Amino acid sequence: MQGVVTGNMMDTPLLIIDLLDYARQQFPEQEIVSRRIEGDIHRYGYQDCWHRSCQLAHVLDQLDVRQGDCVASLAWNTYRHMELYYAVSGVGAVLHTVNPRLFSEQIQYVIEHAEDTYVFVDLSFVPLLEQIQDQLPQVRGYIILTDEAHMPSTSLPHVLCYESLLQDKPNAYTWPRLDENQASSICYTSGTTGNPKGVLYSQRAMVLHAQATVSKHLLDLDTDSVLLPMVAMYHASAWGAPYAAPLAGCKLVLPGSGMDGASMWELIRDEAVNVGLGVPTIWLTLHNYLSEQGITDVPLARVCVGGAASPLGMVKTYAERYQVYWQPIWGMTETGPLATSLPPTPAIMALPKDERYELQTTAGKAAFGVQMEIFDGNDEPVAHDGEQTGELRVRGPWICSRYFKNDDLSSFPNGWLATGDIAVIDKHGHMRVVDRKKDVIKSGGEWISSLEIENIVSAHDGVNECAVIGVKHEKWDERPLLLVVLNKGTQADADDILAHLQGKIAKWWTPDAVVFVDELPKTGTGKVRKNELRDKWFHFLQQ
Amino acid sequence: MQGVVTGNMMDTPLLIIDLLDYARQQFPEQEIVSRRIEGDIHRYGYQDCWHRSCQLAHVLDQLDVRQGDCVASLAWNTYRHMELYYAVSGVGAVLHTVNPRLFSEQIQYVIEHAEDTYVFVDLSFVPLLEQIQDQLPQVRGYIILTDEAHMPSTSLPHVLCYESLLQDKPNAYTWPRLDENQASSICYTSGTTGNPKGVLYSQRAMVLHAQATVSKHLLDLDTDSVLLPMVAMYHASAWGAPYAAPLAGCKLVLPGSGMDGASMWELIRDEAVNVGLGVPTIWLTLHNYLSEQGITDVPLARVCVGGAASPLGMVKTYAERYQVYWQPIWGMTETGPLATSLPPTPAIMALPKDERYELQTTAGKAAFGVQMEIFDGNDEPVAHDGEQTGELRVRGPWICSRYFKNDDLSSFPNGWLATGDIAVIDKHGHMRVVDRKKDVIKSGGEWISSLEIENIVSAHDGVNECAVIGVKHEKWDERPLLLVVLNKGTQADADDILAHLQGKIAKWWTPDAVVFVDELPKTGTGKVRKNELRDKWFHFLQQ
Ligand SMILES: Nc1ncnc2c1ncn2[C@@H]1O[C@H](COP(=O)(O)O)[C@@H](O)[C@H]1O
Repeated sequence: MQGVVTGNMMDTPLLIIDLLDYARQQFPEQEIVSRRIEGDIHRYGYQDCWHRSCQLAHVLDQLDVRQGDCVASLAWNTYRHMELYYAVSGVGAVLHTVNPRLFSEQIQYVIEHAEDTYVFVDLSFVPLLEQIQDQLPQVRGYIILTDEAHMPSTSLPHVLCYESLLQDKPNAYTWPRLDENQASSICYTSGTTGNPKGVLYSQRAMVLHAQATVSKHLLDLDTDSVLLPMVAMYHASAWGAPYAAPLAGCKLVLPGSGMDGASMWELIRDEAVNVGLGVPTIWLTLHNYLSEQGITDVPLARVCVGGAASPLGMVKTYAERYQVYWQPIWGMTETGPLATSLPPTPAIMALPKDERYELQTTAGKAAFGVQMEIFDGNDEPVAHDGEQTGELRVRGPWICSRYFKNDDLSSFPNGWLATGDIAVIDKHGHMRVVDRKKDVIKSGGEWISSLEIENIVSAHDGVNECAVIGVKHEKWDERPLLLVVLNKGTQADADDILAHLQGKIAKWWTPDAVVFVDELPKTGTGKVRKNELRDKWFHFLQQ
Repeated sequence: MQGVVTGNMMDTPLLIIDLLDYARQQFPEQEIVSRRIEGDIHRYGYQDCWHRSCQLAHVLDQLDVRQGDCVASLAWNTYRHMELYYAVSGVGAVLHTVNPRLFSEQIQYVIEHAEDTYVFVDLSFVPLLEQIQDQLPQVRGYIILTDEAHMPSTSLPHVLCYESLLQDKPNAYTWPRLDENQASSICYTSGTTGNPKGVLYSQRAMVLHAQATVSKHLLDLDTDSVLLPMVAMYHASAWGAPYAAPLAGCKLVLPGSGMDGASMWELIRDEAVNVGLGVPTIWLTLHNYLSEQGITDVPLARVCVGGAASPLGMVKTYAERYQVYWQPIWGMTETGPLATSLPPTPAIMALPKDERYELQTTAGKAAFGVQMEIFDGNDEPVAHDGEQTGELRVRGPWICSRYFKNDDLSSFPNGWLATGDIAVIDKHGHMRVVDRKKDVIKSGGEWISSLEIENIVSAHDGVNECAVIGVKHEKWDERPLLLVVLNKGTQADADDILAHLQGKIAKWWTPDAVVFVDELPKTGTGKVRKNELRDKWFHFLQQ
């Protein structure tokens, strides 16, 4: 042959709508169960979801939403939000899942920045929009995600009712065959400084991510799985659950706004949920609720936990008290979000318990498609020896290559995404985040891993949760301070806690002080606000 | 936004070499076991396979193989062939897996047509090349897949020894980041008339196909699988097993040239094979061997069977005698090849036996990514009602869009591949091939499904295998003739066999005659040569 030749395979794009099309053909009756904002439980099958997504596509046409237009959602995890996921991306528009936990100026900023044409909004978030409605001139209308009977009275202009719009639409639709690299959705991630930055996903990225998610490398989902995403559909697409579930044909349980222990448990029990998805705090909330109620017998087989490091204490509690496998995952809004995990393979389950628990506090291994490396300060990759730390960088078809309408490429050196996580990789490929770059404690020029200390403290019987932060120190520049929330009714003093650390970390890593607090401040997605803690406690050791 | 926007995801290609890269990182010690042409059993891990593929890439550089060049293999299923799969496609060249079962003029034709630069050949096929060596001027050299000690004396020009070439090469290689649509490999499919036609696969197609293959929709492979592909690596890439196995991290057992019952059983027993891949004839061969030996206790959990319809008799025998699930699959060289299957999900296994066996004689359901429709004579899709037949057409990212260097697009109407199979699809998506278009029997203007009759006859206790063909009839134009091979030591006459059909098919479908034969002629890939049978028996009813 003469030079490079293209294969003779069909040029068939990887499209999000095909995931739902597959499910409605293969698993028409498989259920999507939602706790509605209106209060009741709603259930229907993938076929119904397909039909209503088709109706919604007709609505979008009627509203003159065009390919490439952004359409916002401000919504909890429900079937209606799921319909938006498919219909908006399906017609070639871009679904902007707005995080209602942002400050109202930020919400205004992201809606403007994405140039959202319409906002689909849950009843609970109407007041939030009313506050900023005057600053959103480009929004052509607000669609309230409810039926006529539940429509609120509101000052919002151009208000429409979701169910009324859908009502008379045909339940079939001719979906366009889009380019697979076309943008499908956008999610903004808010740092501690500056404006939120948009991650613009593509059709291809979301389909490949869904395939990786259902595979044995990541969540290992199938028709027998009953999946409860306790991570919000407004945050990194609920870790892709709305795309993965139809592909796996699993039952999907959507918690609506019920993020408390009682609501969560009700769904888990009534729907026989066997796989949960959420940040560690969610599983701490569930554990606290179950402990109060004296419940230990749960249908869960696994909780898949990411968004923050997995504390050893929780890994153990879930294993020993509930017979639930705590499956760590790592990812970020910029990575699809799922990139690594540690599924309970027979080999993992055959390990001695303590070895297994220890592994479960890592982030697991990269899925096929994701490349990971650790880089030192000179931009050189370091060995995968479980010892050398550096910044984690990742690469792959569902990894962000730049922020939306943003020329700052500093997070994207040489075709990698620099994650801002400090990590190690061992020789088997297990990755462990030892700190966020911005949370790193530098004592006398040397690093101390706050996550490692937290991990050990979390396994102390009396500890409910904890955080380690770096605070000002005259001599060492920074020293670690340990903040602890005790279990209800437990007594422990600083010495008990520090004794528990002895022999498990280098002596000079030992926190200079322990402070007992009632709770730790959290972000809307359940992560500890370390910057807030640092602001508050920064001069503690100097007082 | 203004018009269509491309997502901000990394433009990372899907490349074949990354499958092996993944395996050598994640499952370095997982074994590839081969029966060598030299006679012994060879075993090594994915890491070794990676290192030797790197060495082979250096050899290809040394031989001045360039991107887009075709490189031929004439080889059995062994680790060396596997190395060719990765190294040749990895450097951006195109691996042409030549089918040694073709007539020698056809072999000469395909090597010329693909413009192969080098031929890598197993010891067994050297004589075959010697016959045509004078007609292959563009071939620059022949590399014999063996070591110095086993080099044959041969009249082939420019002969090199595989192991000697690899010996001193570095075991790391910088693989180029290719375009994912670049051609990776080519396989020729031979019809009954005309020259063989080339299917030119791409990197992307093979990676997406591998992901589908390991998924629960198709072969459901993981680290506990021990996979024995009894389908040749020279025929439709051994159904993609060399790509899927590293992705799944499963143990791969390669049978070399040992396609007989005894060799097969030896590997299954010694390596604890739990998943087999092959055409029905292979499993008939194994069954005949096991019956002779009185063996019923086998490590196999599943045999995955495609290339021809699954006969009810075999489905039952494997279930009841061996406790092995017969997993039907459908595909063709033009479709990657895998497109549909029926994995043993809990739902399938919970069905009443007879219902399940019946389903196992269909071809199962389409994997995510593959679209299927049945078209009538007017090019209109017919309903999925399990009744209406028509030509099966398929579409998807690993489906052929045209033949290589061939302007005849008659098999590719409107962006579909017309498969030449007559099929039905039921409302749950189960597809059943009722005949090859060219094998269809037309009696008095109406179709008779030869496969359906064969299916029922195969379940008769005395029947080893059978075939139904259409033969000339004065009044009805064609009528069905049934050819039967009885089990050894069994006696049965035509009336017994026809009685078994009674009530199970329409009366007018009953074959006009039954002929007992010693064997059925097969193609190199184990399919019954119906055209040969027709030639021989065409005038039987007129005599
Ligand atoms: N499960 C199946 N049932 C019936 N025929 C099959 C099946 N799988 C493959 N085939 C036949 O094999 C052909 C492909 O042959 P090949 O390209 O040589 O692999 C298909 O077009 C079908 O006619």
